[in-house]
Formats: sequence, C-alpha cells, structure tokens
Amino acid sequence: MDDLVPLRYHDGCLELLEQTLLPAAEVWLPCHDPEAVAAAIRRLAVRGAPALGVAGAWGVVLGIAAARPGERHQTARQAAELLRATRPTAVNLGWALDEVLLAVAAASDDEAVAVATATAGRIEAADREANRTLAGHGAPLLPPGGRVLTHCNAGALATAGIGTALGVIAAAHRHAPLSNVWVDETRPLLQGARLTAWELGRLGVPYQIVTDSMVGALMARGLVDAVVVGSDRIAANGDVANKIGTYTVAVLAARHQVPFYVAAPTSTVDPATATGRDIAIEERDQREVLELAGHRIAPAGAHALNWAFDVTPAELVTAIITEAGIATAPYGDSLRNHVAAGRSRGVRS
Amino acid sequence: MDDLVPLRYHDGCLELLEQTLLPAAEVWLPCHDPEAVAAAIRRLAVRGAPALGVAGAWGVVLGIAAARPGERHQTARQAAELLRATRPTAVNLGWALDEVLLAVAAASDDEAVAVATATAGRIEAADREANRTLAGHGAPLLPPGGRVLTHCNAGALATAGIGTALGVIAAAHRHAPLSNVWVDETRPLLQGARLTAWELGRLGVPYQIVTDSMVGALMARGLVDAVVVGSDRIAANGDVANKIGTYTVAVLAARHQVPFYVAAPTSTVDPATATGRDIAIEERDQREVLELAGHRIAPAGAHALNWAFDVTPAELVTAIITEAGIATAPYGDSLRNHVAAGRSRGVRS
Repeated sequence: MDDLVPLRYHDGCLELLEQTLLPAAEVWLPCHDPEAVAAAIRRLAVRGAPALGVAGAWGVVLGIAAARPGERHQTARQAAELLRATRPTAVNLGWALDEVLLAVAAASDDEAVAVATATAGRIEAADREANRTLAGHGAPLLPPGGRVLTHCNAGALATAGIGTALGVIAAAHRHAPLSNVWVDETRPLLQGARLTAWELGRLGVPYQIVTDSMVGALMARGLVDAVVVGSDRIAANGDVANKIGTYTVAVLAARHQVPFYVAAPTSTVDPATATGRDIAIEERDQREVLELAGHRIAPAGAHALNWAFDVTPAELVTAIITEAGIATAPYGDSLRNHVAAGRSRGVRS
Repeated sequence: MDDLVPLRYHDGCLELLEQTLLPAAEVWLPCHDPEAVAAAIRRLAVRGAPALGVAGAWGVVLGIAAARPGERHQTARQAAELLRATRPTAVNLGWALDEVLLAVAAASDDEAVAVATATAGRIEAADREANRTLAGHGAPLLPPGGRVLTHCNAGALATAGIGTALGVIAAAHRHAPLSNVWVDETRPLLQGARLTAWELGRLGVPYQIVTDSMVGALMARGLVDAVVVGSDRIAANGDVANKIGTYTVAVLAARHQVPFYVAAPTSTVDPATATGRDIAIEERDQREVLELAGHRIAPAGAHALNWAFDVTPAELVTAIITEAGIATAPYGDSLRNHVAAGRSRGVRS
C-alpha cells in the first residue's frame, strides 16, 4: 500500500484529502489559491498541527505563483497573514509560514516562486522524515503485546506522512505486535472514530473504538499499558496543548500509573511560549457539539461551550518523543536540547 | 407547568414518555403487557435506575391484570423474570420487582391485581417523595451563584418525578440561583445533551452543554464549584455505579478539590453488594458508538467496546445524598443508617 499522505502539491495545485468526509469517502480537494487553503483549514478538511504547517506553506506558494511580477513579496505576506489567522493553537502553522516568508524575503521577486516552492517542499519532507525518526525512538517505549490508548488523530493524516503518535504505534507494532489500540472517538468531530480507526485499519493494527468517557473505566480495569498522543503546541516548560480531552486522559493515566507519552516533531515545540497558560486555546462553533451529522441533538435554545484544545501540565507527561530522541523532565532543559538538535537537522529554524 | 413525569399508569395501560425521541418530539408510548415494557427498557425509551424500578413494577401489574384466574401468581413471577433480565446494573429494577412479587405472594389469586397495583403505586409515590426530600437535603450543599456540573440524566425523567441530581440542582436554584449548570453531553446516547438540557430548560435553570472530554479543562480553569450525579447502584461500602464517564469526572474532581456528590434514594443502595467490584456492568451494542443518528461514523470492520456504566470508588465521593440525609465516609456505617431510615419511610424494604 502507498504511504498515506493528507496532501500533495503539483503544478500550482495543492490537493487535500478531504478529512471531513473520511472514512465514508476518499475525495481529493484541489486548492488553487491561499483562500481555498484557508477555508479548508478552517473547516478541518486538513487538520493536525504538522499538516497545517505544510498546508500553510503550500498556501503561500499558491499565492506567490499567481501574483503579478513585482508584487510577489507583498502577496506572500498577505497570504501568510490570511492563513495564520485560520487557527490559533497549532504552533507549526505560524512557524512554517514564517519559514516561507523568511526565505522569500531573502530572494528577488523573480526568484520568489522557486524559493517558496523549495522551502515548502523542504518543510514537507523534513516533517515526514522527523516523524519516521521519532517513530523509531518511541517504538521501544510500548510493550510487546501491549494495549495502547490514543486520543484524536495524530497519524499520517495529521502530518506530512507517517504520523506522530500513530507513527510510534505503527513502528512498535511492526517490531512486536501490540494486542490492541484503544481509539478514543474524540468528540465533537470524531477524529478518533473516523480518522485514527481508518488509519489503523489500513495499517493492519488491531483496535477498538471507545467513547471518550470510557477511558477511566478501561484504566481502572488495568486494560491500558500506555498512552501516546500528539500535540499542537508544546511550551518551553513541557506543558502540552492538544485536542480537548487530552488533559483528562493524562489525569487518569497519572492516577493509574500508566505512562503518558507525547509524540511530536521539534517544530511543535515553541520556546517563545513559556508555559501552557500562555497558549491561545481556540473556541469553535457550538454547532459542532449541538448538532450531529446535520441533526440537532440539543433542545432549541441550548448553548454549548466548545474549546478545541486543552493543556496538559508537564508534571503529567512521562516523556516527549521528538525526532531528537526522548525528552524527560525537567523539560526546560531537555526540550532546549531537542530544539537545538531539530535545528541542525533542518526540522525547524 | 405540570411536574414532569416519565410514565403514567391508568386502566391497564402504562404510558412511557419515549425518551429516545426527546427533545425533538414528546411522544407517549402505550404499553399493555410486560413484553412491551421490557422492550421499552431495553432500548432506553425509559431509563434511569429509579424510573426502571417503577416501570418494572407496573410491568408486572400489566402481566397479572391480563392473566387468567388461578394463574396470576405464576404470571407475576414470569413477568418479573422477563423484566429483571432487561438490564443488570440498576438495583432498583430488581428491588421493585421483588417488592411486587412479595406482596402478590402474600395475596390470594383474586386479590393479586389489586395488591400489585397498590404496591406499584406505592413504589412510584415513595420514589417521588424520596426525591423531593433528598433534593431539600442536598440543595444547601451547592453554593449560591455556583457553577455545578452533572453527567448523564438524573432528572425527573430518570425517576418517578423530581429527579435525584437534578432535583438537588433545581431545589438549590429555587433557593439561591445558580449561575450555570455544565451539562456533559454523555456519549454514546447523549442523555445529557438531549434529556438533562431539556429538563433544565423547562425548569428555567441556566446551562451550557459540553462534550464529556471538556470536563478536565473546565475544572483546570476553576469553572466548576461542585459535581452532582445520580447512581444506578450504590454498594454497601459507598462505591457508586453510574453512567459511563462518571468515574472520570470523579477523578478530575478529586484532582481539582471540587466536591463530588451522589444523589439517590435509599432504594439505590444495595447492602447485598459489598463493593463496586461486585456490580455487574452492562455491555451494550457497539452500534451505539459506531453509528450516530443512523449514520455510520467508523470505518467498515471497526469494533467498539460499549460499557454502559462505570464504578466510582467511595474514596472519591464527597457525600451521598439520600432521602434520609447526607451520608459521608465511612459509608459502611452511614449508608446502613440511611437504609434503615429508608425502610421506616417505606422508600425501600
């Protein structure tokens, strides 16, 4: 089977695997300008912090490629600002946009398209390679025959390929089969039940879906040996922003002495964010909670609060797996070393 | 507004408010025999431990009423066994069935219908009265202006009326308005988003719906002052079986020093069950998780594990509110006293 990727760029077109339709249908959505990419990001046709970075970079390329001569630098900046405003929490998006802007700023107007294209291509390739490497680092942490739980989707679909948490899980399973992966369904948008389940099925990894609220009961019965999740932003102190519900899983894991691992490339680490309290948490449309498959669930007049992410404090994180190895507490020091190593590998600036 | 009840018996017919259709439609489902009541219980047209007890009792009445003379005792036993097998976790169902059987066993065949009818009516009235009383006991535990979280539906719909956890919340709000009730949506069947939201709207209590996985983030931000939930069975040591996800809420509450209250009539306390480990946990059809509103969510071939309940250990329970007052640890002693008081009030045998 071909390696799964959530996007592919060729000849002035970024195609996105339409994730809102998975697993019922596999549809590739063509985007010809930054506006189309921004719209796709907003409605989660493409999602996952590393994938957002790659998609954003290609979005700027699309903008520059269509710009008139002499206007490419300005167009690049406008496209980047449009894309940056789509979603606030994932640090990779802003980081990748800055990478492209920086490269373009150093180039002439004539060179801008080629330089931006090369930069986006490099970001995409580096992310895939970082994930392959971190999967190798993380795999030995999962016990042979183990029962591993993951939340949301941190798979190939959430990255340029391979995946972070699912990359670790797949690598572990290839090395010594896992007996089961518990897939949290991940309300409200069901990235677990829809996307992670689909990826694990493709990979031939055995799994079972559970509602988010079953995690406590599973751990109380001793049915979870480890948790692996991805991240949208890791603060300098090791606090981890990730899909809403991750913090709850981490609290349960701590109570039951289940190791709680976070897998992410160093591009997800944000040295400029001191702690989790400094991470902007996106609040999404309450209709994501109040409606299901287009049907209203809740009574007329009901309101919902719909934070897309939460913050897991570093004290609950057993280790953070990056392409530079396994970071453990104190995270201030270990993450600084990982980020330096990530720079030298070209995974981040 | 009339007091909300989930069922009403008259003239050989038990009408159930069809809870699977709420809040979109208010439909009363007529049941004329025990089989119809059993089917309604299995598919959760009526649910909630106290309501199951009352519905079960009336189900036996329907069976006896249609029995031929001389066969009423046998018919009562057969109807009770049919109804008892529908759902294993709620203790009130088995208890109420035994109450009716005991009363019928002491009566002649001629008297059986009248005795069963009187017993079912007494169980129904006693539950409503117990809830009214326990609501008064529990209300002072909730701070004026407080933000209170509840899980699943422990309202009038789950009882003979008034409700347990929602009874406490409504009584507190009448006394000194709460500022908000956080309503967990309660996957998979969304009793929170559908039923609790609907009841709170009727009562004029302000509320917001959240996904089950948002509870941790709410507590981390200091937005929850107390939790109140119902129960399907309370073991002699104070371990509490309740809707799946309750244990997770209790673990989070303990971490954040948020009081965690359980509200239930003494008929939900089961002295014959020593600890939570001895409570049978119902596993329901995995399609409840894999499908939503008739649409398949998960990939073909996916499996789900769907426990309907979990067990919260007594150590995580701040207090148990019954019609006899407020029970606190050590629960072995306090619950024994509550059960004795419940007997003297006729709430339980």
